[in-house]
Parts: sequence; structure tokens; C-alpha cells
Amino acid sequence: MEKNIEKFVVIGLGLIGGSLALDIKTKRPNAVVYGIDNKEEHLEKALEFNLIDKKGSLEDLKDANWVIVAVPVDKTVDILVKVLDTIDLNTIVFDVGSTKSQICEAVKNHVNRRNFIAAHPIAGTEFSGPEAALKELFLERTNIICEVEKTAFGFQEKALQLFREIGMRIRYMDPLSHDKHIAYMSHLSHISSFMLGKTVIEEEKSERDIFDMAGSGFESTVRLAKSSPAMWTPIFKQNKEQVVKSLSEYINNLNNFKELLEQDKYEEVFKTLDETNRIKEILNKK
Amino acid sequence: MEKNIEKFVVIGLGLIGGSLALDIKTKRPNAVVYGIDNKEEHLEKALEFNLIDKKGSLEDLKDANWVIVAVPVDKTVDILVKVLDTIDLNTIVFDVGSTKSQICEAVKNHVNRRNFIAAHPIAGTEFSGPEAALKELFLERTNIICEVEKTAFGFQEKALQLFREIGMRIRYMDPLSHDKHIAYMSHLSHISSFMLGKTVIEEEKSERDIFDMAGSGFESTVRLAKSSPAMWTPIFKQNKEQVVKSLSEYINNLNNFKELLEQDKYEEVFKTLDETNRIKEILNKK
Repeated sequence: MEKNIEKFVVIGLGLIGGSLALDIKTKRPNAVVYGIDNKEEHLEKALEFNLIDKKGSLEDLKDANWVIVAVPVDKTVDILVKVLDTIDLNTIVFDVGSTKSQICEAVKNHVNRRNFIAAHPIAGTEFSGPEAALKELFLERTNIICEVEKTAFGFQEKALQLFREIGMRIRYMDPLSHDKHIAYMSHLSHISSFMLGKTVIEEEKSERDIFDMAGSGFESTVRLAKSSPAMWTPIFKQNKEQVVKSLSEYINNLNNFKELLEQDKYEEVFKTLDETNRIKEILNKK
Repeated sequence: MEKNIEKFVVIGLGLIGGSLALDIKTKRPNAVVYGIDNKEEHLEKALEFNLIDKKGSLEDLKDANWVIVAVPVDKTVDILVKVLDTIDLNTIVFDVGSTKSQICEAVKNHVNRRNFIAAHPIAGTEFSGPEAALKELFLERTNIICEVEKTAFGFQEKALQLFREIGMRIRYMDPLSHDKHIAYMSHLSHISSFMLGKTVIEEEKSERDIFDMAGSGFESTVRLAKSSPAMWTPIFKQNKEQVVKSLSEYINNLNNFKELLEQDKYEEVFKTLDETNRIKEILNKK
């Protein structure tokens, strides 16, 4: 009986760690999921919501089959090294961070680098904590794996099997390309949304009156401004260069658009909007 | 029998006109809805989808009980005057435009101003045309009425009854306040989203590769960039002053945020994100 048990340790029981734990428990009946979190409250909730089976400790890393690191990206860099220091030869470790260069860099010469898979499942919501965990959050979502060649082949195979079981589509990318593209496709959206929220909050003193005017358009555009600052500040920090670059281009486009309005160039305004409508076909092709 | 028939003429069979027609036909079994649109294709589709009962013409305005003007806001200004020139003494007319100052200004001295209700139902999607019409699009949505005191009391009563039947919440506002606030709550979101789409499209030459990385966050933030340029260009034009003002403040906030990143002031980055999280409670209070 013991033989068949698969021991998972999930470090960080937030939206992503909690959702992974849920899917693993559904797909792998023999899994026993141990949870580690620096907030006792998260551990209690994770047990209550049945995301995990037991509270874990660093001791549990030693005979774990899997270790999942699902903490903010600044903490991932530290924790990952400790995890790789501690694990057994056969343990498979993966992270889920939204940046990949610094994380890959931190462990590139580690003796257990071959046990690690650098992963970024592109999935989530604006909510955080164990109460935000969702079943099938990763269904049909892309999971980007970086430097796959540095992971031992047998571990690659097992990890791909797990990722596919919970519905992920796999893509491979080098860490720098990942960080560059994800700045545009994710990090910039968050800044755009946070600053929209900030601008509107600042302008509107009498909230109650004005937010009645919020339509579904505002609500979807500002949705990401509800995201966790503890998660996003380290992402912006780690990916500063690419984030600043994408943000500069965004500001530049906004300034150009403002000038078109100021100069009453409405044909060009129309043309700009019309060309950008192409996003419809691009997203449909996905 | 004829007595009980209520004749509606809907001018403009797009998302809003089409959705209103649908709800009216559901809620008012005695309604006969005539459609007018400058695109024959829209008329054919509106008949096919059962949004309207018949094609109409300007002749139909003369004995209509209701005329709804649901065309882009630049065209509303012209058409509304013609409609008020043509209608019977007892016809109730309303528009649905996302700007209110120029529309109210255009008809303020019209002899039939009392027949007109300046309305803005804050509802919609990123899609357009008769195929975008949705049942119950206006359920629980706010409908802002401007200069209600200029509408004859009897017509106010009847219009409120209709608006409530299709589920709208009513608010009153002067046209200038409407245009000022809606610039922040709607028009700015559209520009923010369009320019996000533009920035990403420009950067990413190899679309197929990159848009696989689009998560639900990007998709919701960029959703409004799918909106109709024919609808939005005239809105930005009519509300230029307020739109440019809100856009300047937005750009200012983005520039400040970029500086925080460039200067590695991550505590302030955190603080900014954290303060903006307040949008959660504000939107929940609605």
C-alpha cells in the first residue's frame, strides 16, 4: 500500500498552489498532499477546503516524490535552492513563477538542477490565498517550460504526464524570451489595469455616485487591479527591464493617441482603432 | 385591436438598438417594432433574428408611439433633429448615446424637446451589429437620464415604466457631469484597452507563437479593443475635452509608476498597488 502512495509537498497555498493541489488530489487518488505555508491561517484554510491532506515541514521534502514551489517569485529564488539542497535523488521539483530568468539563474549550477523543472502555468484569477483555489484552473491553459534540457529526461517525462493530466498545454521557451514576451502578454496588462483603477479612484471623490456608472467594460478592464501586491511587486522587480520597456511603448502609444485627439485627427483615430481590432482574429486563432 | 398596438420605431439595429428591440418584444406583447438602418444587411438580419417585426421608413415616425435612436453619437445629433421634426405630438423619443452634452445641446430649443428623453443605458459588449443583440442586456444596468426636467412629465412616466420593465436602474445627471464621469468610467477604459492591444500587436511579429501566452488576464484587459471604431471614434470626438483630460491623468500615473520601477522603489510600488486594490470594495459596493 505504502508503495503506491505518491507524496506531494506544495509550498505556498495560494491561488496557484491550492489549485494545483486540488487537481492533483482529483487526478491521482494515491497522492498524499502535504502543505507548507508561512501563514498558519493559510494552512488551516487549505485543510478546511480539502486542498491538502496534511500540514508538512521541511523534513517532508526528504522523501517527497514531488515538490511544488508556488510562492511569490522573490521567495522562489531562495526557497528553491533550499529545496534542491534537501531533496532525495528521485524527487521532482517545479515552480510556477511568472518570471523565469532569475529563477533559472539561481539554480543553474545546483547539483540537483536535473531534478527541477522551471514552469509557468499561465492561469489565474485576480484573487489570492487558499480560498481562491479553483478546480480545473489549468484546463486548456498553456504551461511554459524553460530550459527543459537541464531537467533529467525521466523527470521531464513524469512531469509532462502530470501537467497533461491536469489539462495543461505545454510549450518550451528559453527564460529570456519567456520574460520578454510575458512582459507584454501579462505584466503590462496588470500595470495598465492597476493604473486605470488608480486614475479613476483619484478622480472620483464621491465614489458611490460614480461607480454606479461602471459598466461591464470598466469592470473587465480594471479587474486585474484587484490582484495581490505581494505577488506582483516581486514580478515587476525581477522583470524590471522588460516591464519598463513594454510600459514605455504603451505610454508612447497612449501619448500618440492623445495627440491625434488633440489635433482632431479623427480619421487617424478611426484607423488606429480599426487596425487594433485585429486582436479579435489573433485571439480567436489561439 | 389596433388600439392596443404600440408602435416602436428603432433607428439603428446594432448591439443596443437590437437588444432593446428584443426586450421590448418580450415585455410588451402588443408592441410592433419597426426597424430602420442604413445597412440593408442589418435590416435583413434583424428580421431573421426576430429583433424587429417589420422594416420601417421615415413615414413610420409619424404615427409611432416610440422612437428609439440607437446610432453612433455623431449621427444621433443629426437624426434626432429630423425625428423631432417629424413625430406626432404624443410620440416619445429617446436616444442611447454614450455622450450627452452635444446631443442635448442639438435639440435644446426644438419645439418637440418635451417629447425627448436623453438616455444612456450603460450596457454593452465588445461586439456590434444585429448579431450582437442580447436578451436582458439591460437587466440591473444603470440608465442615466439627462435633463429630465425638459421632458414632459407624462412622457417621463411612460419612459420610466418601459425602462424599469426591461430591468434598468435609473439615475439622473446633468449632461456635463455625465460626460465628465463617463470619460473616466468608460471612455478611458476603451482607450487603455485599445492601446494595450496596439502595443502588443506591434511588439509581437510572430503572432502565433506569442498569443499562446495570452492568459485570461490579458484577454479581459484587451477585450474592449475589439469594439467598433465606427461607434467609438465619434464618442471620443464628442467628448474630446474630458477624454483628453482623463487620458492625461492616466498617462501621468503610468509615467510615475515607470519611474518607481526605474528607481527601484519597490516599497512604493507595493504601496501603489495595495492602495489601488481598494477598487475591489468600491466595485462590490455598487
